[in-house]
Amino acid sequence: MEHTWIKDIKENDTVSGDYLVTNKTLGQTRQGNAFLTLTLADRTGAIEGRVWDNVEQIASQFKQRDVVTVVGQANTYRNQMQIQIQGLKRNPSPVDTTLFLDSTPQNTGHMLSELKKISHGIENRHLKMLIDSFMADHRFVSQFKKAPAAKYFHHAYLGGLLEHTLSVARIVLQMSQHYPDLDKDLLLAGAVLHDIGKIEELTYDLGIDYSDRGRLLGHIVLSVLMVEEKLKDLKDFPPELATRLKHLILSHHGEFEFGSPKRPKFLEAFALHLIDDLDAKMNGLSKILKDDRQEGSWTAFNHLFQRYFFKGSVTAKADENREGIPAKESDQPYLFPVDL
Amino acid sequence: MEHTWIKDIKENDTVSGDYLVTNKTLGQTRQGNAFLTLTLADRTGAIEGRVWDNVEQIASQFKQRDVVTVVGQANTYRNQMQIQIQGLKRNPSPVDTTLFLDSTPQNTGHMLSELKKISHGIENRHLKMLIDSFMADHRFVSQFKKAPAAKYFHHAYLGGLLEHTLSVARIVLQMSQHYPDLDKDLLLAGAVLHDIGKIEELTYDLGIDYSDRGRLLGHIVLSVLMVEEKLKDLKDFPPELATRLKHLILSHHGEFEFGSPKRPKFLEAFALHLIDDLDAKMNGLSKILKDDRQEGSWTAFNHLFQRYFFKGSVTAKADENREGIPAKESDQPYLFPVDL
Amino acid sequence: MEHTWIKDIKENDTVSGDYLVTNKTLGQTRQGNAFLTLTLADRTGAIEGRVWDNVEQIASQFKQRDVVTVVGQANTYRNQMQIQIQGLKRNPSPVDTTLFLDSTPQNTGHMLSELKKISHGIENRHLKMLIDSFMADHRFVSQFKKAPAAKYFHHAYLGGLLEHTLSVARIVLQMSQHYPDLDKDLLLAGAVLHDIGKIEELTYDLGIDYSDRGRLLGHIVLSVLMVEEKLKDLKDFPPELATRLKHLILSHHGEFEFGSPKRPKFLEAFALHLIDDLDAKMNGLSKILKDDRQEGSWTAFNHLFQRYFFKGSVTAKADENREGIPAKESDQPYLFPVDL
Amino acid sequence: MEHTWIKDIKENDTVSGDYLVTNKTLGQTRQGNAFLTLTLADRTGAIEGRVWDNVEQIASQFKQRDVVTVVGQANTYRNQMQIQIQGLKRNPSPVDTTLFLDSTPQNTGHMLSELKKISHGIENRHLKMLIDSFMADHRFVSQFKKAPAAKYFHHAYLGGLLEHTLSVARIVLQMSQHYPDLDKDLLLAGAVLHDIGKIEELTYDLGIDYSDRGRLLGHIVLSVLMVEEKLKDLKDFPPELATRLKHLILSHHGEFEFGSPKRPKFLEAFALHLIDDLDAKMNGLSKILKDDRQEGSWTAFNHLFQRYFFKGSVTAKADENREGIPAKESDQPYLFPVDL
Amino acid sequence: MEHTWIKDIKENDTVSGDYLVTNKTLGQTRQGNAFLTLTLADRTGAIEGRVWDNVEQIASQFKQRDVVTVVGQANTYRNQMQIQIQGLKRNPSPVDTTLFLDSTPQNTGHMLSELKKISHGIENRHLKMLIDSFMADHRFVSQFKKAPAAKYFHHAYLGGLLEHTLSVARIVLQMSQHYPDLDKDLLLAGAVLHDIGKIEELTYDLGIDYSDRGRLLGHIVLSVLMVEEKLKDLKDFPPELATRLKHLILSHHGEFEFGSPKRPKFLEAFALHLIDDLDAKMNGLSKILKDDRQEGSWTAFNHLFQRYFFKGSVTAKADENREGIPAKESDQPYLFPVDL
Amino acid sequence: MEHTWIKDIKENDTVSGDYLVTNKTLGQTRQGNAFLTLTLADRTGAIEGRVWDNVEQIASQFKQRDVVTVVGQANTYRNQMQIQIQGLKRNPSPVDTTLFLDSTPQNTGHMLSELKKISHGIENRHLKMLIDSFMADHRFVSQFKKAPAAKYFHHAYLGGLLEHTLSVARIVLQMSQHYPDLDKDLLLAGAVLHDIGKIEELTYDLGIDYSDRGRLLGHIVLSVLMVEEKLKDLKDFPPELATRLKHLILSHHGEFEFGSPKRPKFLEAFALHLIDDLDAKMNGLSKILKDDRQEGSWTAFNHLFQRYFFKGSVTAKADENREGIPAKESDQPYLFPVDL
Repeated sequence: MEHTWIKDIKENDTVSGDYLVTNKTLGQTRQGNAFLTLTLADRTGAIEGRVWDNVEQIASQFKQRDVVTVVGQANTYRNQMQIQIQGLKRNPSPVDTTLFLDSTPQNTGHMLSELKKISHGIENRHLKMLIDSFMADHRFVSQFKKAPAAKYFHHAYLGGLLEHTLSVARIVLQMSQHYPDLDKDLLLAGAVLHDIGKIEELTYDLGIDYSDRGRLLGHIVLSVLMVEEKLKDLKDFPPELATRLKHLILSHHGEFEFGSPKRPKFLEAFALHLIDDLDAKMNGLSKILKDDRQEGSWTAFNHLFQRYFFKGSVTAKADENREGIPAKESDQPYLFPVDL
Repeated sequence: MEHTWIKDIKENDTVSGDYLVTNKTLGQTRQGNAFLTLTLADRTGAIEGRVWDNVEQIASQFKQRDVVTVVGQANTYRNQMQIQIQGLKRNPSPVDTTLFLDSTPQNTGHMLSELKKISHGIENRHLKMLIDSFMADHRFVSQFKKAPAAKYFHHAYLGGLLEHTLSVARIVLQMSQHYPDLDKDLLLAGAVLHDIGKIEELTYDLGIDYSDRGRLLGHIVLSVLMVEEKLKDLKDFPPELATRLKHLILSHHGEFEFGSPKRPKFLEAFALHLIDDLDAKMNGLSKILKDDRQEGSWTAFNHLFQRYFFKGSVTAKADENREGIPAKESDQPYLFPVDL
Repeated sequence: MEHTWIKDIKENDTVSGDYLVTNKTLGQTRQGNAFLTLTLADRTGAIEGRVWDNVEQIASQFKQRDVVTVVGQANTYRNQMQIQIQGLKRNPSPVDTTLFLDSTPQNTGHMLSELKKISHGIENRHLKMLIDSFMADHRFVSQFKKAPAAKYFHHAYLGGLLEHTLSVARIVLQMSQHYPDLDKDLLLAGAVLHDIGKIEELTYDLGIDYSDRGRLLGHIVLSVLMVEEKLKDLKDFPPELATRLKHLILSHHGEFEFGSPKRPKFLEAFALHLIDDLDAKMNGLSKILKDDRQEGSWTAFNHLFQRYFFKGSVTAKADENREGIPAKESDQPYLFPVDL
Repeated sequence: MEHTWIKDIKENDTVSGDYLVTNKTLGQTRQGNAFLTLTLADRTGAIEGRVWDNVEQIASQFKQRDVVTVVGQANTYRNQMQIQIQGLKRNPSPVDTTLFLDSTPQNTGHMLSELKKISHGIENRHLKMLIDSFMADHRFVSQFKKAPAAKYFHHAYLGGLLEHTLSVARIVLQMSQHYPDLDKDLLLAGAVLHDIGKIEELTYDLGIDYSDRGRLLGHIVLSVLMVEEKLKDLKDFPPELATRLKHLILSHHGEFEFGSPKRPKFLEAFALHLIDDLDAKMNGLSKILKDDRQEGSWTAFNHLFQRYFFKGSVTAKADENREGIPAKESDQPYLFPVDL
Repeated sequence: MEHTWIKDIKENDTVSGDYLVTNKTLGQTRQGNAFLTLTLADRTGAIEGRVWDNVEQIASQFKQRDVVTVVGQANTYRNQMQIQIQGLKRNPSPVDTTLFLDSTPQNTGHMLSELKKISHGIENRHLKMLIDSFMADHRFVSQFKKAPAAKYFHHAYLGGLLEHTLSVARIVLQMSQHYPDLDKDLLLAGAVLHDIGKIEELTYDLGIDYSDRGRLLGHIVLSVLMVEEKLKDLKDFPPELATRLKHLILSHHGEFEFGSPKRPKFLEAFALHLIDDLDAKMNGLSKILKDDRQEGSWTAFNHLFQRYFFKGSVTAKADENREGIPAKESDQPYLFPVDL
Repeated sequence: MEHTWIKDIKENDTVSGDYLVTNKTLGQTRQGNAFLTLTLADRTGAIEGRVWDNVEQIASQFKQRDVVTVVGQANTYRNQMQIQIQGLKRNPSPVDTTLFLDSTPQNTGHMLSELKKISHGIENRHLKMLIDSFMADHRFVSQFKKAPAAKYFHHAYLGGLLEHTLSVARIVLQMSQHYPDLDKDLLLAGAVLHDIGKIEELTYDLGIDYSDRGRLLGHIVLSVLMVEEKLKDLKDFPPELATRLKHLILSHHGEFEFGSPKRPKFLEAFALHLIDDLDAKMNGLSKILKDDRQEGSWTAFNHLFQRYFFKGSVTAKADENREGIPAKESDQPYLFPVDL
């Protein structure tokens, strides 16, 4: 059976596919008949579905967070698309997670190969052995290839962590040539390892979320703990080098308010922080601009950056229709909205 | 007639009791018939009610903010519980305010006795006489026993001010022993008096709110004005002692941004601020954790603290269902949500 | 045909007039019939309208942002006023923009005359010639008379820029006498020119919004560019005087966080900033207080100022009905809401 | 005997006059002889003085903070002007405080008369009686005429409080006409009373400093306590009016971080805050510009405003000699000094 | 030979003892003779010393940071006490560090016993075993007994870490009874372990300073790494309990800006943060007040807290002699110094 | 005559060369003899000089800011190197500015060629013509080759602006390939023009300082004004492209608090800001690390970044001798110095 992507559903379409039930509520019409309201999701969006027949029997088969196989018909009700569900059953088979999670557009195998190749360029034997010990750890590598780099913003899809890590490593290579004062080996090792704790900070089976450890300890400290564990087996790793490398990880968010327990204290720590920031912003902003569906030359208001983004080129005509200043701006006790 | 608590109402229940009308709106069906939509509240929650018969006659009997006696039937409409009201009349008798406001779980008489007993331990005769003059003021005492400590967060229920004051006073006793540099008498007097202005800052008859004086002057200044008034009658009260005591009150929020016109300038002022903060947070956080109804190991997002709280123990499995990053976090122009 | 103002529409009224269509959506009843949902706006508000007959034919005649001539009947549906539209056609004639935008309560001709008269009091011949060159520029003057001073808050209506400019200029005259150290000529010239960039920053045909140039460059820099252009033709304008004048414009928001690329560096720059701020706040606050419809002695929560405003006089009784603390307050990690 | 002003002392001058001893230290030359090092001050500055003869006998006559009559000779030692003291005795007579403290350039009697006249224009009889009760309080008036408005910045000289109060009241009169929504009576009363607590917050006998009460309670709360005391005798003063007036005082610093326990909540409170700020800045900045002795077109770096001020007119040539960026600027982790 | 404490040296005293050379500079008189200027320190202060004879021979014997045995004579030169050194030789024997570092006034043996006794009250066997494994680690215990809790402010002396840890643990016991919702075992374990990383963050042989690891990694992360290492040997330690305990350590500074990579997420984490803060402030403030040598009722300006502290009781008279507002205050662009 | 660099002067050296007089003061010995104290500077530092003979005659020959030719002898007085000046005369010939200002280590001709070559790669003919119009402006180019990029931190030497601009342009080329969403032409044009206003913001004859226009208008606005002037001659330059380019310049400091009147609103604006920041920090930090003269593994405290930097490698031993926490840190009211 073909899967109808939720974003593609149009009036009167016949809909079929496997969907994640993210909400399930029993209701009652004014006439006293039971009905079932569901939210069905795949990686392209979410839609409301209604079951009007056999309600109790169908409802008893599955619970929220299950994946169900659905057949139905799309129509509009109160200006919103809805599916009138004609058939529904729980899908007991192993789920194809790619239905529910986006993936990197790039090949993870190729990316890993390139990252390994770049790592082999590290001349310091201690740092090279440390990286090698991670690359030889199959459990680590399989997670590292799969993990996203974030729940929201940048590289927030399967394989995103690897894609981001590789991108940072490539820029590190270029900048190490551009700024010869940089210690290329240390910076590269930091680039490869700076976010590895995300494989434990996040969960990413049918959706991306934080794990309990992730919320309580954070990927920065988790990364350092993972490095520490590998270092246990590398007996002659120079202590100052280990300290410098851990400092790169601990300080890579740059400032306290972004959760860095330490601010950068030497050149490579600054470089890693700035390159990481550049890569995250380039990836995340490109996505905001691509995904935006607002008409006109400006995106919808972006809360993370507290501004509208310019999409330009379309038309320079002002559209008065845009929603008002978001509440957030209002904490400026000045009367002129300054720069949305 | 028994009172049905709003939080306990379930589908098809017969509902009866006295409720506060917090919203009253006349509507008209597409067929042109009048109906009445009400919001009914007691201290456990609020629910929508509908009157379909005798609408004009019933509507003319009462107005918003009245307490009404209701009989009706609960059902679900568009996924929300509603009461179809069959009988409704204004309740003209004196209202039992405990229907509408929570109260401290502790006995206010006992708490007051203990606070008096602790106050009797003050050795400085001036401070003791000052506290005594408050305790001998019946109008003050009756309000002091009844007032809440806040509209929202901590000790936000009848008797909460006394409960909080006593708790702070107890800890003050312990810390005065732990840190012998502290002037126990001054600190105790400050503990007893630091929040007394709340009996004027807040109103607490059928709900907790700010009074006009409260919003315009605030409990910190109101507390000082109340102390000043009592001091008028204590002619030989040492001026510097009076100044120190008033400073304790004026600085007990610790920082300007929390409305303190003065920051703590000596040891007892710091101690009172820190102990007050500890008691408020312990009480408030315990309540957040107890009242939370979110499934899984984390509470719903708490806006006051800008974070989720860990309830732990249940399961470490991630639930992807949690609502997205709240808008507030977005004023951090960094791409990684840092620490929710 | 008479125009029915939207704010005046009452149950069962017959409604007629020209309205701006700010939203247009085709829907379908459960029975499969098409209907049209519109949002109709004039300068007094917006209302929903429904077309049930001849839907396709009517819908094809106009698009969103068009002005349409409407005849219909008002009724209440789900507690909201609605227009059942009986006749609708696109209005092809030039639109009377005053239907859609508020205007200054004052006469723009008189205001411009007074501003010119005040400007003639400038004794420095260079500054006087510069102001004259603007006043002789008909395209500029026609925009300057029409432009609002803001999209939201203060003087946010046609003619608002002129009204605000004149008000600032009047106060400047008074303060120049009060503080003799002030260079009246420079300050007056700054007062007249400080906000002229708003005629390009904003669009104000059927509504007020930002232009693309406005969002990307801002009225502060646009004002300086407009001054620079006029200065090109005033060959012997003293360079330091030009620099001082531009500094007045660049620094008139006072602080970086309000978009000033420079902070005030001499007395006149401070004076202009402070007087501009005073005038904006007096105008804006008066409007908030006048427009507020909240019952009781306090306005609805104002997000721009993060507080309730006191309307006083009515009654000092507390109303518990007020909405809770808005989310924004919650970024204070202290438990007492400090000062709403 | 003529008083030689310290700022006028030049190499080889004979110096005579009454000076305040702000520092007194006994020293010993390498040869073992005692000598006395003093810091002598009058209102124009401070200078070091040395006594080489009769050291013990002279030193025993006076102590630090005494006023002494001195005769001596000025010379330069290590690039600093110094007085070789030939005669010194304690001055036992009542001190002419004008030697040590600057005074307002205006006549305090005239200023008080004008302020009273303006106050008589208050039409509300309660507010008028309140102001009258202060003006009839001789002890209050004599302090109010003498007190400075600050220790440092604005109106920091004897009579400064009255000068500032009158200036604010005058502007209030003008703005009440300019903005007819303002309640002139309330605003005027607030203008007269907003800073009266400064007569207790500061001490101003031989220098301006904070009193203990001033540091611990602050002039904002002290002003409210003084108003409260007078209100005791005005039995029928309307409570809401009293609350509004006290709110004007409590909120006149505008923001929490400037020590306001309340932020302005209605139009007059905003107006008072903004006008007070304007007057303080105009007075203070004029003084900075007048007192500055830096060569070139810029003042010395001003720490209060974190910037240099432009004195202009002199020459546009850059002088490289200026001291470097002060340390304070360095807390901006950006590499470009932004706006000094 | 008796050690003359530097703080006790008076004019003409004969001085003898072992001192740390913190500065050593060779100079030349105008006559061309060499002399040696030293800064000599013990734990009570520092003083300048001069060697005039045998300069080269003596200078060649020792270098900066050595401990030297000195005999000399105190005299005053340019208002500063100085030692004319008559004999000086390097002290080759093991140094008595108590000469150079303050120590806790309490008995470290007794404190450790009490801390162990309190730890034995932990009922959870995992947490108890973890604490035991630290207490059984002799190298750890010897450092833990010796380490200070800070370089500057609170408990900044040998044994300070243990003293602070014990004090926090004692309060934790009391608060666990006061607030029964607290998990006493977890909180106690957190109290004992929260600062252990300071034994590596600081060095404390002849003075307290940060180690390189300390500056680059910080005691918060170092503490977690030390806990992680002990947990390796406790195979069945429940993972969630370990995560909670590590979270207590990671979040105990409370806010990002104080270097916490995580903010408290459950009740015990808040409690530990608040109690730690209370204890640090009580200890540090007591010390500031005790050590202050400023005359009058106020301490010298304290930069850490940006205020003067009130010592009271002495005299309420204002002393105009106090130094001006420190530069730091000046970053408030408001004209009234708010609250020093 | 050879020039003795000030940084190389050692005890007893004979000194000769041309130096800038940055301070000139006449003094008098206790015996009544005149002497002259000078501060002499070249680009490597500054030193004090003394003239004891022919004082009046010599002093009359030159004034502060003149360049003088000096011969003298170095010796140490009170621990500071000093020059006893034996001969001094004003140098009337054109000054060799390289004695007083550092220059870029790179060849400015080569750098300019490379920048032109990179600019030729711009394909958009409008942007290419704009850049060409600057490169064809000889007056502009000669300043652009000479100007520094800052007064203090990064590229603060002659040729620094060109060096920085070229470095940013090179990275832009690389990043345009790495992130294909970037509009290379627009970004390159922005890179070349973003800082051109610095040729007017700064003066750089015998030292680097701000011009009056620079302080009052700033290089950001000056750059836009310079672009605007060139655009006047490029009649068909697309308006939206001009707006985008100006936005790149206006927003390149990234945040309001760094003087940007606009924050970045599209991808290229973000990229330019982040690359500019990276280049400035890499250049500036490398210089801090190279110029630091502090012994041990850490630099002196850096006020711009509010931290010490790690130089590592030397020795991991802690040196207790380091100066205390700088005052700035003290505005954190937390007791633990967090992260120096």
